[in-house]
Amino acid sequence: MTRDQGQAQERTGLWLVGARGAISTSLLYGLSAVARGELEPTGIVTARPPWDALDLAPFDAWVLGGHDICTRDLSRAAGELVAMGVLGADQVVAGAEAAAAYEAHLRPGLLDGPDVGMADLDPRSSELGALPPREQIAALQADWKAFGEAEGLKRTVVVLLASTEAAREAREEWERLEDLEAALDAGTPQPASLLYAYAALDAGHPLVNFTPNLGASTPALRELALARGVPHAGRDGKTGETLVKSALAPMFAQRALRVLAWEGYNMLGNRDGEVLDDPAHRVAKLRNKDEVLRQLLSGSDPHTRVGIDFVPSLGDWKTAWDFIHFEGFLGARMSLQFTWQGSDSALAAPLVIDLARLAALAHARGEAGVMEHTAFFFKAPLAGGTHDLSMQYARLQDYAMQRSKTR
Amino acid sequence: MTRDQGQAQERTGLWLVGARGAISTSLLYGLSAVARGELEPTGIVTARPPWDALDLAPFDAWVLGGHDICTRDLSRAAGELVAMGVLGADQVVAGAEAAAAYEAHLRPGLLDGPDVGMADLDPRSSELGALPPREQIAALQADWKAFGEAEGLKRTVVVLLASTEAAREAREEWERLEDLEAALDAGTPQPASLLYAYAALDAGHPLVNFTPNLGASTPALRELALARGVPHAGRDGKTGETLVKSALAPMFAQRALRVLAWEGYNMLGNRDGEVLDDPAHRVAKLRNKDEVLRQLLSGSDPHTRVGIDFVPSLGDWKTAWDFIHFEGFLGARMSLQFTWQGSDSALAAPLVIDLARLAALAHARGEAGVMEHTAFFFKAPLAGGTHDLSMQYARLQDYAMQRSKTR
Amino acid sequence: MTRDQGQAQERTGLWLVGARGAISTSLLYGLSAVARGELEPTGIVTARPPWDALDLAPFDAWVLGGHDICTRDLSRAAGELVAMGVLGADQVVAGAEAAAAYEAHLRPGLLDGPDVGMADLDPRSSELGALPPREQIAALQADWKAFGEAEGLKRTVVVLLASTEAAREAREEWERLEDLEAALDAGTPQPASLLYAYAALDAGHPLVNFTPNLGASTPALRELALARGVPHAGRDGKTGETLVKSALAPMFAQRALRVLAWEGYNMLGNRDGEVLDDPAHRVAKLRNKDEVLRQLLSGSDPHTRVGIDFVPSLGDWKTAWDFIHFEGFLGARMSLQFTWQGSDSALAAPLVIDLARLAALAHARGEAGVMEHTAFFFKAPLAGGTHDLSMQYARLQDYAMQRSKTR
Amino acid sequence: MTRDQGQAQERTGLWLVGARGAISTSLLYGLSAVARGELEPTGIVTARPPWDALDLAPFDAWVLGGHDICTRDLSRAAGELVAMGVLGADQVVAGAEAAAAYEAHLRPGLLDGPDVGMADLDPRSSELGALPPREQIAALQADWKAFGEAEGLKRTVVVLLASTEAAREAREEWERLEDLEAALDAGTPQPASLLYAYAALDAGHPLVNFTPNLGASTPALRELALARGVPHAGRDGKTGETLVKSALAPMFAQRALRVLAWEGYNMLGNRDGEVLDDPAHRVAKLRNKDEVLRQLLSGSDPHTRVGIDFVPSLGDWKTAWDFIHFEGFLGARMSLQFTWQGSDSALAAPLVIDLARLAALAHARGEAGVMEHTAFFFKAPLAGGTHDLSMQYARLQDYAMQRSKTR
Repeated sequence: MTRDQGQAQERTGLWLVGARGAISTSLLYGLSAVARGELEPTGIVTARPPWDALDLAPFDAWVLGGHDICTRDLSRAAGELVAMGVLGADQVVAGAEAAAAYEAHLRPGLLDGPDVGMADLDPRSSELGALPPREQIAALQADWKAFGEAEGLKRTVVVLLASTEAAREAREEWERLEDLEAALDAGTPQPASLLYAYAALDAGHPLVNFTPNLGASTPALRELALARGVPHAGRDGKTGETLVKSALAPMFAQRALRVLAWEGYNMLGNRDGEVLDDPAHRVAKLRNKDEVLRQLLSGSDPHTRVGIDFVPSLGDWKTAWDFIHFEGFLGARMSLQFTWQGSDSALAAPLVIDLARLAALAHARGEAGVMEHTAFFFKAPLAGGTHDLSMQYARLQDYAMQRSKTR
Repeated sequence: MTRDQGQAQERTGLWLVGARGAISTSLLYGLSAVARGELEPTGIVTARPPWDALDLAPFDAWVLGGHDICTRDLSRAAGELVAMGVLGADQVVAGAEAAAAYEAHLRPGLLDGPDVGMADLDPRSSELGALPPREQIAALQADWKAFGEAEGLKRTVVVLLASTEAAREAREEWERLEDLEAALDAGTPQPASLLYAYAALDAGHPLVNFTPNLGASTPALRELALARGVPHAGRDGKTGETLVKSALAPMFAQRALRVLAWEGYNMLGNRDGEVLDDPAHRVAKLRNKDEVLRQLLSGSDPHTRVGIDFVPSLGDWKTAWDFIHFEGFLGARMSLQFTWQGSDSALAAPLVIDLARLAALAHARGEAGVMEHTAFFFKAPLAGGTHDLSMQYARLQDYAMQRSKTR
Repeated sequence: MTRDQGQAQERTGLWLVGARGAISTSLLYGLSAVARGELEPTGIVTARPPWDALDLAPFDAWVLGGHDICTRDLSRAAGELVAMGVLGADQVVAGAEAAAAYEAHLRPGLLDGPDVGMADLDPRSSELGALPPREQIAALQADWKAFGEAEGLKRTVVVLLASTEAAREAREEWERLEDLEAALDAGTPQPASLLYAYAALDAGHPLVNFTPNLGASTPALRELALARGVPHAGRDGKTGETLVKSALAPMFAQRALRVLAWEGYNMLGNRDGEVLDDPAHRVAKLRNKDEVLRQLLSGSDPHTRVGIDFVPSLGDWKTAWDFIHFEGFLGARMSLQFTWQGSDSALAAPLVIDLARLAALAHARGEAGVMEHTAFFFKAPLAGGTHDLSMQYARLQDYAMQRSKTR
Repeated sequence: MTRDQGQAQERTGLWLVGARGAISTSLLYGLSAVARGELEPTGIVTARPPWDALDLAPFDAWVLGGHDICTRDLSRAAGELVAMGVLGADQVVAGAEAAAAYEAHLRPGLLDGPDVGMADLDPRSSELGALPPREQIAALQADWKAFGEAEGLKRTVVVLLASTEAAREAREEWERLEDLEAALDAGTPQPASLLYAYAALDAGHPLVNFTPNLGASTPALRELALARGVPHAGRDGKTGETLVKSALAPMFAQRALRVLAWEGYNMLGNRDGEVLDDPAHRVAKLRNKDEVLRQLLSGSDPHTRVGIDFVPSLGDWKTAWDFIHFEGFLGARMSLQFTWQGSDSALAAPLVIDLARLAALAHARGEAGVMEHTAFFFKAPLAGGTHDLSMQYARLQDYAMQRSKTR
């Protein structure tokens, strides 16, 4: 039996940070429905060729748990998704058992320093967030250890799904692992996402950072991943408007059309939107969204703008309008505009499943460091490279084809 | 001196069929402005790397002539484009000399059988169209011969730009060159575009079919191209809504999203739109537009529709609205809609320049038959293959890179 | 006690023709929820000032019944609306009792002559549709009589909500009541909607024609309404794209802007859409939609188009895109485009409630003939007049204010 | 001869503050073309019934002059409008004489205190702006006097068209004329628009404030208008997105639909847009735009937003996207979105002509104070009242009908 074949039979942990949020809730009900054969795996890229030939963990092999800083009941999150037409009421009923099993594995998360005062904040998260960083890390690692032992898991993938953190200035201690270790020893407070990333990589858990937060994107953390031989991927899942941008912008470049302006307005109404309504939290997200255009249209130097506005009534339905003003032959000025109306959670959840499967596979194969083939899923891929969606897709296909051949 | 290097110094003919139309008019003023260094080559793909390293005919090497079935004054066509904001009044003034030289090389074209009764129809075109096919072919070839000799041209690229022809049922005589020759000998009437294609290939002129018309797309004509050793490309230039489709549709397939419906509504008001208002003329165009989606979304089996409506006030400004209804994870239904507002002529003209340059190069190099690397420019590429714009673009890049290396 | 005050205490019948369709289903669950105080009367115009001062039948006074030609289970219609996010699953549960009561009052309707072959056609409707017209009329009247007696109703309003009928050429016998009576006596087949209208008016039931079908719009039927002293209103409820048109088009006229083109594309996927996919059924609907623009923009003579396309995946969600091209000062050409995404049933149902209330009131007051004040609700108001929404609204307000004063 | 009939024969002055801007330039070329009979009066409301029956000054009776703070050549402003497709090159040629006559009447305007450092600022405007307010007022009045005498004008209407001023806190001295006079005597600096308004009203010139600036909107200035017996109208011309809002928002209210959110995003690229890119200048404009919705949707309490972003490539082409999220019966959530693409100047100029004609008429008739019938033209009508466009239009019609009758 090869190491790969083994994986299919193994139970694998999927640990969601932001466990009571809309993406996690969608993932929980959706993955369990797919596992029971009641739902098509629409939106799950790795369910199809050529990835289906890889030795990826099957849908029913996953055991879910997670951290969250709020105490919001899972059924309330589910109810909101039903009201918004994302989840069906019948899917919630059918997933009740899976939900109960999941709830049993939910643990208080780390409150990020600058955040305060949510109505339903878990007081244990406040306490945790106030501990010295080394103690926070130890607490997380203890949770994962207990989870793995209780469920007899071969490995657990940790996925960061929490809301956008307040932006921080770059710090020197993030450049080298040695310096970071020293800062942790000295008790210097760190962003919660960095502590999750450190704890996961240090304990050998593959890591996926689906948020715009710091996570393992700094040189020090990348060093740690290589040192511990752990694969990781990130950051900032590409689910909606930016996805369209990365598919459309190459068209203008390929046709030698000059983009004069690309103005993007995003509206959303879920908790993510509420958090992003605060400029301090918005910075990282907007930077990633804009960077995609800057690179893909490097020949044009367009006027660009990305706005994110909180519109409560929209709930999980991200609605975006982009206006693209461009110049063609003879200096003729033309335009393309599009409106995107998508459920953020229904778009994100299947990609998280893809990334968890790919991360578990990479771990099983002993691949370490940044999973370069996953740029397709991210607004700001850790390995850099092109933002052209088709080229990113080809890269992901290549990975599958090479890996399939060498089995 | 290699054959390639020679081309740069040679004067090359560009013969436009549909010479008094909006695309030809835009091309005339635009190409001469680029040649004089007064206009950026925006929209001309081959003006940029890696194609600029090929030995393509420079912009000032081209001599223009053409066929048309109408007598409409070129200045009227130019005036309409100025009124519509496509051409600048100053560009028309600056191009007056080039326009006069062009007018001197315009000849009456072939009236296609089913067409009748345009207000400004050239009576000579009616007469020509009524001649036996062999005589029509001879007339075209005589025009090209006179053009080449008068201007001392090394070669002349023929480009089909005329309005959409009435659709015809497929005929057996189009399957084999031998049968077609017999039909021509027997005087069986043929679509005008087929006669142009036959005449051009038979006389050794590289051919570009930018229209949805038959041209050289049948087996018999392809046989002729190979027999005479002539390169050709086609068909149906991909300039607007279909261009966007070929960039966007792969995104849905790549993300495993199920497209439920893709409804496209096109409006335009130029002469092309007027012709397409007649269902008989619309058939071929709609088929090509729809086929692109059918292939790219083959996994989804979506409900699709493509409409083209004549809206006189829009003139050359093709305005299209596409609504894409799709399903993601959990069965959530989402949508993307876009509005495209572009000048058909300003979008088409630079691509015609690209194709003429590439066809002249292929001819200079002795390449014969379908120019497979040009699929990027067409709705219905003769060589088939993927409709994915990025992959078509990569193919065109490969051609340039290989050809550059082997020089 | 005046006649008006009496109405509030009386039970009133609401008879829906097309009783198993999406509008009727929405009305059933919604009206019962409003009556139970569980739902806000959003979308019901007469729930607000100044109409709330009229002596309209309260929401809990209505008893529902209806005709349909299909046997589709009501719970299936409800299930589809839940799946489409129009009805909440909880609303269906809460309305179970009301639904059962309604089902008990459903009777087979008249199959319109040209219609055939629905999968779930009620065979009794085929039989009924094949009877001589006088017998069809008698059957309908018998149903209403039984309904009224069983429930002890003071009056029953009949509302036509069935799918669009195949269009018919105008007939001379529809011009005068005398001729129509003769044709009925002679057994000349008539459109189903005409027979419903005749039966209702003849038996003294107030009538609302919410469809584009003939109903009581012909002179002969109007004569009948006056002869029997019965009020009626129609036709073709104005719920979506046309509603927006009637609000927006006056703006262009008021500002002396010249509308060059107004192109409207409608897509819908419910049974109504399926029926309208057949050109014969589409004629009347398109005519009414276009007429609104023609009148409101009479100074401009714009190019107009109204399309209705069947897109199954949209279900009840009518999605329409309108493009308005207009000219302002200096001949500058500008545009306004809008996309409307609305649930046809959720938009129509409250207006049906409004019309039923107003028709019952008019009947209680002895008003006979066309209810001129209801033009606000229709694409093709029987009394003609302006299509300007604001002016129609003012007319409806005037009615309320005058009637309130004279009480 | 009545006073009214006299007006038709009289030459009337039209003094534009912001004389070198895009609106003034459009007005100049357009009005002269209409006067010469070369251009249809499209967009001019008063050119049509019932206003054409009023004794309004004919188009060829107007003599133009104006103030500006910049020295930008009028031909450059015209050239930009030509490049943007608003003005035709031929219109500029045909209007050369009118332009020269206009240039002869242009005078340096008042620089508003907080504004500095434009590239092409007229140094005389800086000097003027630094004078004590009484001297500034005197300078303006002297310019108008000279203009009237040179051209033999019966009266001169002053129209404020300058860019949006920096917002100011309300001051007590603006509440009563007496206090304002004292402040002027004391040399307290005042917003430029207030000084223009004071100077015009004090000298008996009818005033139109087409900008969001203070102008004559304060109680003190209104007192002055009544004291001097001068009519005035304002403020903030309603030309684009807000115009559509005032036509559409009543529809939702009339149909008892609950608007949940109305998010409006405006983009423009002209000098007005550049000025509005500064938040201090943006305040007043956004407040007026938002107030319209707040009033018209008072029953709904929607989430609203109005953004204005500077997108240089758009030039004069204001492009706005509005997303309206609303709830109907059964709680169903629906949406309407629209994109407006209009030339700001071509929309504003004819309304300025309308207002000038109406102001001159009111003056001729001895009407004083706020011209209440002109609310139709403004985002923030001085007399308050409804923002419902149709009702404002009816008010303007009433004025014409009453005035026609009493002649």
